[in-house]
Order: sequence, then C-alpha cells, then structure tokens
Amino acid sequence: MFETAELGRTIGKAEFQQREPELRTKLLAAQEELKGAKFPVIIVIGGVDGAGKGETVNILHEWMDPRYLEAHAFGPLTDEESERPEFWRFWRLLPPKGRIGIFFGSWYTRPIVERVYGLSKGSALKAALVRINNFERELADDGALVLKFWLHLSKEGQKKRLKKLEKNPRTRWRVTDSDWKHFKLYDRFRKVSEKALRETSTGHAPWIVIEGGDTNYRHLTAGTELLTRLTKRLAQEKEKAARPKPPKPEIVKGDQPTILDSLDLTKTLEKKAFTRRLEDLQGRLNMLYRQAVVRKVGSILVFEGPDAAGKGSTIRRITAALDARGYQVIPVAAPTQEERGQHYLWRFWRHLPRAGRVTVYDRSWYGRVLVERVEGFCSEEDWQRAYGEINDFEEQLCEHGILVLKFWIQVSPDEQLRRFKEREQISFKRYKITEEDYRNREKWPGYEVAANEMIGRTSSEFAPWTLVEGDNKYYARLKVMQTFCDRLAKAVK
Amino acid sequence: MFETAELGRTIGKAEFQQREPELRTKLLAAQEELKGAKFPVIIVIGGVDGAGKGETVNILHEWMDPRYLEAHAFGPLTDEESERPEFWRFWRLLPPKGRIGIFFGSWYTRPIVERVYGLSKGSALKAALVRINNFERELADDGALVLKFWLHLSKEGQKKRLKKLEKNPRTRWRVTDSDWKHFKLYDRFRKVSEKALRETSTGHAPWIVIEGGDTNYRHLTAGTELLTRLTKRLAQEKEKAARPKPPKPEIVKGDQPTILDSLDLTKTLEKKAFTRRLEDLQGRLNMLYRQAVVRKVGSILVFEGPDAAGKGSTIRRITAALDARGYQVIPVAAPTQEERGQHYLWRFWRHLPRAGRVTVYDRSWYGRVLVERVEGFCSEEDWQRAYGEINDFEEQLCEHGILVLKFWIQVSPDEQLRRFKEREQISFKRYKITEEDYRNREKWPGYEVAANEMIGRTSSEFAPWTLVEGDNKYYARLKVMQTFCDRLAKAVK
Repeated sequence: MFETAELGRTIGKAEFQQREPELRTKLLAAQEELKGAKFPVIIVIGGVDGAGKGETVNILHEWMDPRYLEAHAFGPLTDEESERPEFWRFWRLLPPKGRIGIFFGSWYTRPIVERVYGLSKGSALKAALVRINNFERELADDGALVLKFWLHLSKEGQKKRLKKLEKNPRTRWRVTDSDWKHFKLYDRFRKVSEKALRETSTGHAPWIVIEGGDTNYRHLTAGTELLTRLTKRLAQEKEKAARPKPPKPEIVKGDQPTILDSLDLTKTLEKKAFTRRLEDLQGRLNMLYRQAVVRKVGSILVFEGPDAAGKGSTIRRITAALDARGYQVIPVAAPTQEERGQHYLWRFWRHLPRAGRVTVYDRSWYGRVLVERVEGFCSEEDWQRAYGEINDFEEQLCEHGILVLKFWIQVSPDEQLRRFKEREQISFKRYKITEEDYRNREKWPGYEVAANEMIGRTSSEFAPWTLVEGDNKYYARLKVMQTFCDRLAKAVK
Repeated sequence: MFETAELGRTIGKAEFQQREPELRTKLLAAQEELKGAKFPVIIVIGGVDGAGKGETVNILHEWMDPRYLEAHAFGPLTDEESERPEFWRFWRLLPPKGRIGIFFGSWYTRPIVERVYGLSKGSALKAALVRINNFERELADDGALVLKFWLHLSKEGQKKRLKKLEKNPRTRWRVTDSDWKHFKLYDRFRKVSEKALRETSTGHAPWIVIEGGDTNYRHLTAGTELLTRLTKRLAQEKEKAARPKPPKPEIVKGDQPTILDSLDLTKTLEKKAFTRRLEDLQGRLNMLYRQAVVRKVGSILVFEGPDAAGKGSTIRRITAALDARGYQVIPVAAPTQEERGQHYLWRFWRHLPRAGRVTVYDRSWYGRVLVERVEGFCSEEDWQRAYGEINDFEEQLCEHGILVLKFWIQVSPDEQLRRFKEREQISFKRYKITEEDYRNREKWPGYEVAANEMIGRTSSEFAPWTLVEGDNKYYARLKVMQTFCDRLAKAVK
C-alpha cells in the first residue's frame, strides 16, 4: 500500500509558485459554496512522524477561511471521556453541515498504537476497525464527505528527516525523544497501519496516501485531492437537489396483528396493592441504585409510547427512589439549530450521562423511526438505515457497561380518549392536550406499524424492549419498576 | 435569620387540596408566558438535610411542564471541571432564555461545606461570597430572574424527621449514615449558612427561607413564592418592552489623542532580521511551551484590532511553534442560536480550554465593548456593565493559574487601505475584502474611542493589554512572540 508513496516525488519552487495561487482561489470558492451546502467535510490526518501532518493542518488553515475550519487534536482521555463510550469524544467534535473539521489524531490512533506496542491482540484491532467502518459509514450515509490523508515516509526518509531537523540548531526542538523511540518501531508501525488502512479504505471514506518527503509536493497534493473531491461532491449535491423527491409512501396496516395487538391491556391492579408494593419496590430500587453507583454501573431508560400512555408519571415514580445527584430526565423535544446541523444521533451522544448515573429519556432517538417516519420528516432511506445505526449506538453503550432499558407503554385508543377527556377537565392538565393530539389519533395505525417494525428490528439481546400494558396505570408503573429492579440486580450481582 | 422558619407552620390536607389546583394552573400559565419572554429563571435550592429539598424539585417538576424545566445536581468535580475555573461547571448548565433551571446543590455548596468542616478560613468564605454576589449580579443584570430557596428545619425538627423516616421500614433507606454525621454538625452548619445567606441575600437574588417541617406548607409556599415573583417579573418585562428605546448615542472623537494615537507606527524591521529572529523565538517558545505543559500553565491569547491589522498571520507564527495537540485557535464569529439564548459571556465560558493548553481567540469577548457598542447591537447599559464583567471573568481565569495575554494590533488608516487594495489584487485573498470593510473605515473614529476606553478599563495587573504597532508586520509579529515568551518564562520559572 505504501510503495507508491516512496517514489521520491518532488515539486520545484517555480512550479509550486505557479500552481499555488490557482489552487487557493479554487479551494476558497469551494469552501464558500460548502457554507450553503447541507453536508460537512471531515478530514482525518494520520501518518508517520515527521511526514508533515502538522504542516498539512497549518497549510489548510492558511489556504482556506479559518473561520469555517476547525482542527482537533487528541490527548489522553479525560475522566468525562473515559466514563463514556470511546467515540463520544469524536461525536462531540464533529463539524456541522457547511463546515470542515480536521481530525489530527483520530479514532485510528488508539487501535494502531496499542497494536504496535503489543498492548492489544490482532482480534481487538480487527474489532476496532469494524467499529470505525460503521462510524464512518454512518457519517457518510448522513451526507458527510469523509476524507482521510495518510502522510507517508520510507524508513530511510524518516531517519533523514529527523536528522536534518536535529542538525539545524533552530529546528532541533522539533525532534523529541519520543520521535526516535517511535522510529525504532518503524517496521511494526508500518505493518499495523498498512493493515488498518487496507481494511478501512472504503468507497465512502477512502484513504489518500501522500508521499511526505517534499513539502511542495505534499502541500499541492493534499490541497488538490481535497479540492477535486469537494468540488465533485458539491456538483453531486446540486444534481441531487434538482431531482424530484419520491412521494412519501403510505403506511398501511394490513390484516395481520402487530406485536402490540398481542398485549393483554385488561391487566389490572388495585390502588391499595399498588401503593404497598410501590414503596417496597422503591426501597429495593434505591438499594440497588446505590450498589450500582459504587460499581459504576450506569443505566439508560428509554420511554416510548402513544400520548397519555403514562410515561411521565411512571418516570416520576422511579426518580422518587433515586438521589437527585444521580439521575437526569431528558425530555426529548424539537432539536435546536446546532443540533439540526448534525447527524440525528449527535444530540443523544452529546447528552450521554457519566458513568454510574441513571438517565431517563422521555422519548428518544427512536423518534427517527416513529414520528419522523410516520410524518415524513425524513426520507425512507433515512429511517430504514436508522435501525442499524441505533443498534450500533446501543451496542456501544452496552459494551461500555451501561444498562439500556427500553419501555414501550401501550394504551388502547379508548383508554387514550378517556384520558384526553379527563385531562381537559382538570385545569392544570389542560395544557397537555391540544388539537394536534386528537389529529394524531387518526395516524394510530401508522404508528402501530412503525412501532411493530421498530420493536422487531431493535430488540437486541443487549438492549431488549419491554412492552408494558398501560391501560391500568398502576399495573404499568409496577411492571416498569420491577423490570428495572431485576435488570439492575443482575448487573450489580 | 432562621427564627421565622421555626414556627411550626402547617397547612391541612383540605386547604392544600383546595389551593393546589389553582396554583398549578397559574404556574403553568406563567411558564407558558415565560417561554416567549427574553429571560431565564434560575432557582437555587439549598438547606438542611431532610427539609425536603429533593421533594421540592420533584413537586416543581410535577406541577409544571418538565420539558422547559431542567434540574441539575452536582457531585465531586470531574477533571474537565477541575482544570477550569470553579464557575465553569455552573456556567455550562445555565438555562437559556424562556426556560427554568433548578440548581440543587450549587455554587453555595463548596464554600459552606468547607467552612463547616473547618477546611477553609472565614476569609476564604468571605471571598467566595463576594464572587457569588458578582456572579448572581451578572446573571440578574442580563435579565435572569434569580430565586434562592433555603429549606430550613430546627435542630429538633431535623432529628424528628430523620427518626421518623428510620422508623418506617419502607422509608428507612432514605436516611444514610452521612445524614446523621451532618446532624452532629447542625449548630455549626446553621451558623455558617446563616452568614452565607445574610451576605448573599440581595435585591436581585434574594434568599427565600421556607420552613421545611410540613410538606403541604413547604410545597404551597415554594410554589406561591415562585409564582408571585415570576408573574411580577413577566409584567415588568411587558412594561419595559412597551417603553420607547433610548436613541443610540453618537460616539464622538474629540480633539484629545487616544492611547492608540500615542503608538509609533513607523517602527520597522527588515525581513531578513525578522526571519532569523523568528526562528530563534519559535525555538524558545516551544521550549517554554513544553515546560508550561508539564507545570499545567495554560495560556489564553486574545487578539483584537482593526481589519487587516495582521491578527491571523501573527497567530499562525505562534501556533507553528506549538504541538498541534496543545493549542486551539477560536475565530469568533456570530453566535449560534443556542449562544444567543444566553449571557454574552456564556459562549466564551463554554469553550474555555483545559489546563496547560494555549487557546488563541481571534477576536473575543471584547466584541461587546467594540463592535456591539459601535454598531449599537447592545444597549449603553449593556456595554457599560461589560467592563466589570470582563474583568471579573479574566480574574477568575488568572486565579485559576491561566496566563491571559491581550494584544491590540494597531494599523494606520493608510496602511489598512494599502492592505485592502493589495488583497484585492491577489485572487485567494480577495474573499477577505468586502464592501462592508470599506464602510467600516468610516467608523474608524468610533472604534478608536471604544478601543481607548476598553484598554483603559480592562488593562488589569493580572491581564494587561499589549499594544502592538502593526504597520510593519514583521515588527508586530516579533513583538507579540517576544511578549508571549517573556510572560511564559516568568510563569514557568
């Protein structure tokens, strides 16, 4: 893979000076067009020490408008980062649509370095590369232009470069002990990174290997590659925007029952029995919760279901048993402007809780395959893809040691109507009911189909759905509490 | 201060049931009106253990629309938090305009607890209370309604409450060892918090002491206080909005010279001498920077000055000497929607760098007293107040051990014009010049007056301004580099 980047290619000063102004002008024009486009550019910069990674970041800043260009470098994990899944630190720095983000050091650094130093096995590297491919595919599917530059030097070339810098007293400071330490591992580093590049060089996120020995060649090549790919992409976007949108497909509920139809909504529980058992369960939950804090087992609870299914009141019974410092309830409303500029999962990554906490989502990322699907807020492609993206997201949470519980609380149309009417009678509940809620009832069959498919496609062994019969609120609340206690008990055992 | 909250006040069940619905209805209506208003509500909840702090948070969630209400509790500092000034963790959680933020545990916790446990002196408590008053005043000045509830129990009352909870097997879990440990310190806790409350009970952020013994009384009192103050404030806002806005005062530059006039812009340096000294300085800067990393001394560099003064090119000469993992350049453009919903300093707090890093602001929070003042984007009150707010902000940075360097690069109108024309000749620099830049030249005298006042009022001993003669770019770049090196050398010595 690197042979073609060891040819000793150079570009003379005269040629550079002749080509640079045109390249800069075109890059700026492309960047200007990007500002109004609906996708971000993500540039990963990796490679051999001394091959000019830092200089490449610098020249891109000099050539383009730095106000719409952000570079990020990564050091050791902070504790806020280590308390969350590995990719959290990358998600939170993704550029919004219309901007360029440069990742100098990236999701490739840890897997490659650990393997080079023999701290991880080949199978761990392999698993990491699969995760990386998923991540980059999700970004690309969402529209991001993902480019990855690898700056290469031959072993001899790296040695020469370090020696040259050391010889000049004015540049000696650029060479550190760790540079020479890394140099000793050159062969191993080359082998591991060759494997990593090969397995992650995809059509949607290709690696572009650039010979790093000659500054002029390196700069012009990186700039030209960026320009060519960005320009092509901008043209594609324009063409795509001109195409007519496919009509929103109608969701039809056929004769076959959905999984929701199979729920026995007549299950009931008396208020008295409820009150007694609730106090017991709250006591048990509190004890388990405190054990979970000690063992740093965090929980994420997701609540979905029709309006007036009792999500909010159930959540309050749970949080009443917890310490206020240990939980957070996140009501999911419309995204903010910053959030709309990002991948739809970004805002959920962004607010991911720290280790050992309980985070309750009152509605969630499942909005993508429920309301967004039913109302046609996203394309069919978008929500079809979302099942896999959500499973991948939840898998990362679970691998990190977080318990993920998902509750679908179901009510019958009749019971929902009764609750609507009841709410209208109580002055301080009236705000919860709008015309919209009545209109939504007409879309009930569509939501049932969407929920049925969602439950089937995202009920994984690590994050199963719990379906809750919600017509009797006492029964529903206890079932949720009981389920949470049982899962927690297993996890802290 | 607490005597009036030891009267044993109660509200019977019948009265509670009669008054609650009306209170809830009115609270919801007020919250609905708040959504469209231009200020946030910040509620601090403090008090004695067992006095019902958690229950107050819960009842407010139950009574109001939880989608526009956020509660925050605080545990020990994370390392991302401890690497930044103490108030960073509070700033980043402030509610935006139109919303309610509840701080359960707050900026009062650390100062009070440390003093109770004898870990800090009375003078440290005093200093902390001064900082708190500044903070709350800044929030209130920006429009926030700041309410602070203190839930009180007498010593006997606290003992009774804890015993009662312990007696019932179903509620025993609510009482922890640390509750009894705290109880032993009751008298001391009472004394220290009484002092804290007295010194921070201000007109713009009053403490409301509530007797915590009876749940009904406590809930109704907290709810009613919130309702009364919020309603009053909403009415004031309406009245204020109806008042005619004062005309924007003209900024006149008189005959007297400004501090900028005193700069000798004829200072020059040859390119050859520049190149030689630049390499020396970059080597020195890198060495100092690496020492600073080890000693965790971070630096914040602020660049201000007219268009085309050479801010960007100077910044690039500095960052070229640093490790890409160790610096961040933040070009300050228009705020995002989320940022516009907050205090103008919020977005600078938000992006505050971690310890030991170099952060360069290309334009900064000084926009408030420069462009916002000159263009009339904020009221005279707003920018007048900003000097003090900025000094307070920078003082917190410096107290935290961060070096704050502020550079004003000055160019003469003639030199600026020459650079504009030059930029227009170079294809890839043309994007930097717009009609607007020429129009801005007419406002030059206004900017000079604003800059002169800014420099005078914000050049503190901990964060002085460095004025840079910028007509010769080589001279300017070296002066900045030299200043940074000298300050850094002193700090790491």
